[in-house]
Order: sequence, then structure tokens, then C-alpha cells
Amino acid sequence: MNIKSFISSILTLLFSLSASYAQPKYIFYLIGDGMGLNHVNLAEVYLAENKGRIGYEPLVLSNFSHVGFASSNSKSSSITDSGAGGTALAVGYKTKNGVIGMDSAATIPYKSIAYAAKEKGLKVGITSSVSIDHATPASFYAHQKSRSYYYEIAAEIPSSGFDLFAGSGFVSPTKSFDKKDVSDIYNELTKKGYTIVYGKNALANDVYNDKKLIWVNNKTEKSDALKFAIDQKPDDMSLEDITRGAIKKLSHKNNKGFFLMVEGGKIDWSAHANDGATTLKEVLDFNKTIQAAYEFYQKHPNETLIVVTADHETGGLALGNGPSSLNTKALAHQKVSQGALSTLIGQLRKDKPNASWEDVKNLLAANTGLWTSLKVSDDDEEDLLDAYEKSFVNHENETTKSLYANDDKIASLSIKILNKIANIGWSSSNHTAAYVPIYAIGVGAELFNKKMDNTDIPKKIAQAAQLNF
Amino acid sequence: MNIKSFISSILTLLFSLSASYAQPKYIFYLIGDGMGLNHVNLAEVYLAENKGRIGYEPLVLSNFSHVGFASSNSKSSSITDSGAGGTALAVGYKTKNGVIGMDSAATIPYKSIAYAAKEKGLKVGITSSVSIDHATPASFYAHQKSRSYYYEIAAEIPSSGFDLFAGSGFVSPTKSFDKKDVSDIYNELTKKGYTIVYGKNALANDVYNDKKLIWVNNKTEKSDALKFAIDQKPDDMSLEDITRGAIKKLSHKNNKGFFLMVEGGKIDWSAHANDGATTLKEVLDFNKTIQAAYEFYQKHPNETLIVVTADHETGGLALGNGPSSLNTKALAHQKVSQGALSTLIGQLRKDKPNASWEDVKNLLAANTGLWTSLKVSDDDEEDLLDAYEKSFVNHENETTKSLYANDDKIASLSIKILNKIANIGWSSSNHTAAYVPIYAIGVGAELFNKKMDNTDIPKKIAQAAQLNF
Repeated sequence: MNIKSFISSILTLLFSLSASYAQPKYIFYLIGDGMGLNHVNLAEVYLAENKGRIGYEPLVLSNFSHVGFASSNSKSSSITDSGAGGTALAVGYKTKNGVIGMDSAATIPYKSIAYAAKEKGLKVGITSSVSIDHATPASFYAHQKSRSYYYEIAAEIPSSGFDLFAGSGFVSPTKSFDKKDVSDIYNELTKKGYTIVYGKNALANDVYNDKKLIWVNNKTEKSDALKFAIDQKPDDMSLEDITRGAIKKLSHKNNKGFFLMVEGGKIDWSAHANDGATTLKEVLDFNKTIQAAYEFYQKHPNETLIVVTADHETGGLALGNGPSSLNTKALAHQKVSQGALSTLIGQLRKDKPNASWEDVKNLLAANTGLWTSLKVSDDDEEDLLDAYEKSFVNHENETTKSLYANDDKIASLSIKILNKIANIGWSSSNHTAAYVPIYAIGVGAELFNKKMDNTDIPKKIAQAAQLNF
Repeated sequence: MNIKSFISSILTLLFSLSASYAQPKYIFYLIGDGMGLNHVNLAEVYLAENKGRIGYEPLVLSNFSHVGFASSNSKSSSITDSGAGGTALAVGYKTKNGVIGMDSAATIPYKSIAYAAKEKGLKVGITSSVSIDHATPASFYAHQKSRSYYYEIAAEIPSSGFDLFAGSGFVSPTKSFDKKDVSDIYNELTKKGYTIVYGKNALANDVYNDKKLIWVNNKTEKSDALKFAIDQKPDDMSLEDITRGAIKKLSHKNNKGFFLMVEGGKIDWSAHANDGATTLKEVLDFNKTIQAAYEFYQKHPNETLIVVTADHETGGLALGNGPSSLNTKALAHQKVSQGALSTLIGQLRKDKPNASWEDVKNLLAANTGLWTSLKVSDDDEEDLLDAYEKSFVNHENETTKSLYANDDKIASLSIKILNKIANIGWSSSNHTAAYVPIYAIGVGAELFNKKMDNTDIPKKIAQAAQLNF
């Protein structure tokens, strides 16, 4: 035996010894819905270009010790939906698009890694910037033939026994999938032992230590999602609030560890609308969640594993549309999301049905920088003028429909022009089959540095944490 | 000291000991020009879908032990050209677009990792499927203010002293950058001690053991590149021939090791033309190079390091253009590259200037499967018919220009339609700022599993092999 083989044997032995000691007690599973590599890249390039510098400023995850990437196709399609994508990441099996936590025929319920964590005694939190019953969070606790069975999904919360659910709210609190009246989900959850708390500051001072919690934004407000980061005001509930609150709640007087899933759910939404500025600001917003997890890791480096990934890429985003440069700083001029811009235009149409082209131009300029800070080509101006005439002169209401939005044509055209000026491109208003990125740090992070399948990701988390999965 | 800290200390100690013993003697640096993650992904999806299966078939590199990705911007631009991109990968410094192996002002020549390998006594081979004086190979041995100084680049070969140069040929063998007549580069290289060998089989039976070699395709044929893989016949020289020949040449009676750079140079070219089928077949062709390197690694697992990466992404390729599925098997119907299709149409125009629409349709159908195997929409047919009328009726010769091609409009439209049917999208006819993928296996592969900068890649190879760099 030469010195190399000897060292190699010792290493192998010590690794196995070490592995049986080192396992993460605190698991963060952070999922950027629709967050492809180019979405992260765009945010990093924007941070540099907005300061007038060529290059990029790394987000927290770009400093993680290990990276990988995974194929994301579902069982039924080369391009997954968020149901099958979330299911693959939660239970480690591929299924048909649309299904939550079950096989394609929706006959076999699968056990998610969150249940495996619970079985081992870890506290479990399932959180998102969209509704608690949306596909990604649902995949961790529910088993339904369709992601649109919102009430039925939410009704599975009590049997999960998980400690915390947080998000914007519930999409269908009083109607079953077939539109029948059913008992209010808030009452049902309360009856079954959950305490419901509301709003940004609900967990700021009180972690409701002994209670299982449902934490939502506000029952009266739009419950399908938090506002886009670009549209949020300081008083609005944010994903960072949720993340920091969840960490506080789950770690309070708990020495058995926790499993926390946080979804950055609206990266996907703005990418469906091909809205570059809103998308990159959603990524920067999700980065605050990653930062919060990373700060926890820094305090518990030998007991924490953070895995950041995505269920799929949305939009076929490309950082380039012809020239040999990007101009992402143009996106800094956009003050509101395409959806909010659409609302502003709708409001103007209501307030002033015969608003002049100057009125509309002023509104667009104030919210996108077009004309005032960014040159608009004659062709693009003609397209906008055309849309204006249809809308404000002929009173035809044209809209551009994407999965989560039905935006005013003038708004979507403006955003399209702004993205073109920024030199970014979009190939689809839907998901694509791009690999999803994986970033890992902490105990077990070395398991993630390969090309893998999306179903491997929860398996490797389970392997690191020795969960029965 | 508890058991965990103790094991950790021992591991650290043994790792450093182990590192001083384990270093790669055989280094493969394989660069897919323009090969983004989606290009690899497309090839993998195609292999599965062409067999009627949803999913993917992993290429060799997807089984590598470690992966990473890197930002690819140059010093002058968020989107690099192949000069600055090749330079970053070769010398570990960013420079201005267009420059080869020097700083932005073109005053400081940088030392490439190939020179560092040579200094350590390794044999060195610089090879490509395009010309030897093209930007990527040039970055490893030359120092010029512009990538278009082809003659001046080639004239630096003798002073490199490297053992093997292989590729299609030289772009400007008898003209200087300023179009002056200069001594034939083939004569110059011969005079300075290089033996020049020609064609596919030059290294099949004879490795010219003691001689420094220049190995080109054929002096009389088009010297700017080998044919696209999709257009190659069995007798044509391929990148796999070059790779296997180079390995044979460099490893023959050589126990000091080697450094071999192989560029898959035409992935970029077909991506500039947004030609999906030709691009994926270039990736599959480059995969044969990776396979050859991998077979060598399997024979020398403890002495070999393979790093596969790209200088940039080309085309802003997206795997999806709206629907929730891909249809990449449609690309199997394409029999020739867009360039070759363009030549066929040009030939028809010459042979039969008033060829009927049926004649042209038949030619397109035979080479792309449009109409015969794939349904063409009315709008698309109208566009094609329009281009036909301009070309064959009105005798206007319309072309679509991209960096390496100036293709017949009928050809480029047909390929565009075919790509749309396959549900893939392209945002640019140029490079983009996408991260480049990194795949590594062998001794030192663990150094590559992070998000990094492209300039880190040669530094990490040098670190693994303890080169003075």
C-alpha cells in the first residue's frame, strides 16, 4: 500500500465516521418559483449596471459552497407545471402536470420530505409569498388530483400536523373545487387546533410558542398573493417578514431542529408576464429570504443545511437580444409592476375616458422612464399610439392575458419596449424546460454539486438529514 | 476537543497531505464555443424525444462528478466576444472584447495556462473544429490586439513551442492583417520546425512521435472550419478524429503528462444562425470529444482532470416558446445545416432560374420535413411563398446575415419555422450574458463546484495541477 492509497483509505473511513455525526438539524428548502439561472444572473448584472459598472454583484446564493443543476420535466411533459414541479421537489417522484403530491393517476398519495422531517421530530413550516394552497406549498402537505382543488388542498392542513403555514391567504376559503358552498376554511382550521394570525407584524413580538399557526396577510385583502416587491410599501407584508418570523417561531425553545420551506412564488408570475424589472426585483426580494436563512446558518454552521432551487424556469429569459451589451439599468426606471401599471391606466380610463395621448404618455413616462429617460423608437411609439387610440378613442378595451394576469395592452406594450431597451429577451409566456439551478451550503451541501434530476433534490436532503424518506 | 472537531482536524490535515500528492498529470480543457446550459439540455432532451420518450438522455458530461457555472462578461461589455471570452479562460484575466491574450490596451501580454503547463514539462496540444488561428485556440498561444489579426496570430505558433496544433486550417495564410502579401504561414511554420500533416487519417497510424505537428484538414478546401457535424460524410475530418489523434500524439511515450485544449467551435456558429438542429448536433459531436477524454480518464483516473466549459452562450436559446411541451423530435427531419440548405437553394436558382414553387417546396420538404412530416401553418407558408416569389420570380436575392453566415432568406425562414414547430426559441443572433456551465471530473474536480467568474477556471486548473500561473 503506497502513501496515496493509505491516505485515501483513512479519508474514506473518517468520512463515514464523520457522516454519522454530521447531519443538519435545521433544514432550509428555499424554492424560487420560475427562477432560472438567467433570473438570478439578471438580478446580479442589474445591481452592477445600475451603479454604472460592467459585470455583476453576487447575490448571497452565489457565494454558497456548492452548486448544481437539475432537469425539471414532469412525467407527462417536457415542460412541467408548478404542480408536478413542486411535487418532484417535495416527494421525490415525477407526476403528471397539475397533480399535487400523488402519482399521475392520482391514486397513490406520496409522502413529502416535510412529513419525513416531522416524523423525525423536527418542527415544520411551509411558507410562501403566494397563497398557502398554491401548487408549491401544497405539494409539501397535500395530495390532490389537481392543483386547482384549492379548498381541498387547504383542508389537508390539520392532518399534516405541521407547525406553521404562512402566506398571503387562501384562494378559495368557502367554495369547494366544484363551486359548492363549504364551511369556511378559517373556521375549520381554528376548530382543528390552529391559531390564525394576521399581518406583517403578527410574529414580530410574539412567537405563539405552543400553538400551531396559520399566518396570513389579511383576510379582507386580495388573498392570492402578497404584492410584488416592486409595488410594496414599507407597511406591506413581505416574504422577508414571513421568513424571519418563521425562523423565530420554529427555533423558539426548540432543540430538535426544524424544516422550513419558503417559496418565492411571484418570480414566476412576473416572468409569465415577461416583466423584467418586476422579475429581477422579485429575485432580489427572494434574496432577502436567502440572506435570513444564511444568517441563521452563520450562527449554526455545523447544524444547518440550506438548499435553494426552483421548480422550473419561466419565460425563456435571455440576457441579450442582439447587441453585444446589456442595458439593464434601463429597468431601474420602472416604478411599478406591469399589473399595477395596468391598474393605473384603467383608473385613468375611468377618471378621464377621453384622456389625450399626452396624458397617457405622461403616465407611462412617470412609471417606466420611456421618453423622459429612455429613447422610444418611432415604430414602438406608433404601436403604443395605436393601442392608445383603440383604448381611449375607440373605447375598445384590449388586454394581454398571461397565466396570472390580464393586463392592459398599453401597459404590456410599454413593458415589452422597456425590456427591449434593456436588451433582454423572452421566448415564452409560459414555463420552459431549462435546468433549474441548485445552490447549497452547510452540512450535506456537497451532495448537491452534480447535474441531477429534480426528484433527486429532496432525496439528497433526506440523505443528509437521515430522514425516513 | 469533541469527536467532531477531532475528526474535522484530522480530515483537514489529511486533505492537505493528500493534495500535495494528488495532482493531475493529464489535463483536458474542453471548450464548447457558445455552448450554454440550454444547448446541452436541448441535445439531451432531443435524444429522448427522438425515441418517443419524455425526459432526457444524459450526455457524458452530465455524469461528471462536479458542476459549476461562471459569469462570462468581458472587461468592456456585459456580453463577451470569443476573443475576450477565450482570453479569460486561457489566461485568467478579463480583457476588452476582441483582444487576444493581452490587457484591454493591448500592451501587456498575458501568460496562458498552456504556457504554464509547458513550463512544467507537459506536452501541449491546442485544437479546434474551426481554424487554428480562431479566437478561442488563439487565446492559448497568441497575444494580439485583435482577433482578426489571423496571420499575426498564427505567426506566434513557433515561439509557443507547443507540440500540436490541429484544426481546419488557417484563415489568412498569406495576407497580413492590413492585407499585405506575407510569407506563406505553412512555409514559415515548416521553416521553424513544425511538420504539417493533412486530413482525417493523418494521425491514425503514425503519431510522428518526435515532431511538433500542425495538423489541418486540407490546404485546398475551405479552411475556416470543419463541416458542421450534420453535413459531414464519413470521409470528412471530424473533431472526434482530432481529439483521438491528439490524445494519441500527446500521450505517446510521454510520462510527463499533457495539457490538451479542444474547442467545439461551431456550436457557436449554428447558434448565431439560430439553427436548432445543427446546434444540437454540434453538441452531440462535441460530446464525442468529451467521451474520448472520458475514456482516457477511465484508464488514468488518479492522474487526469477533465474540465468542460464554454466561453459564452450564443443565441439566447430557450427550451419552450409557449406551450407546455417541447417537440424537439421535429428537428430530426432537418438533414442539412441552414448554410448547406442555402447552398442547395442557390444551386437550384442557378440550375433552374424559374423553378416553380413546387420545386422549391420539394427541396425544402426533402431537407426539413416541412409539409411531408410537419404541418406548416398558413401564415408560415405565406411567408415562404413571399420569399420564393422575391427570389425565383422577381430574381431579388434576399439573404439573412449572421456572424458566420449570409444565408438565403428561404433557407433561414424554413429553419425558423422548423424551430418554432420544435417549440424552441431564440432571443438573439449574437452572444448573451448567460452563465457558462462547468463540468469537471478527476483529480481536482471538486474545485469547480461553485458559482465563479470565468477567469477563475484556468486559475483552478493551475491550482489543481500546481502550475506556475
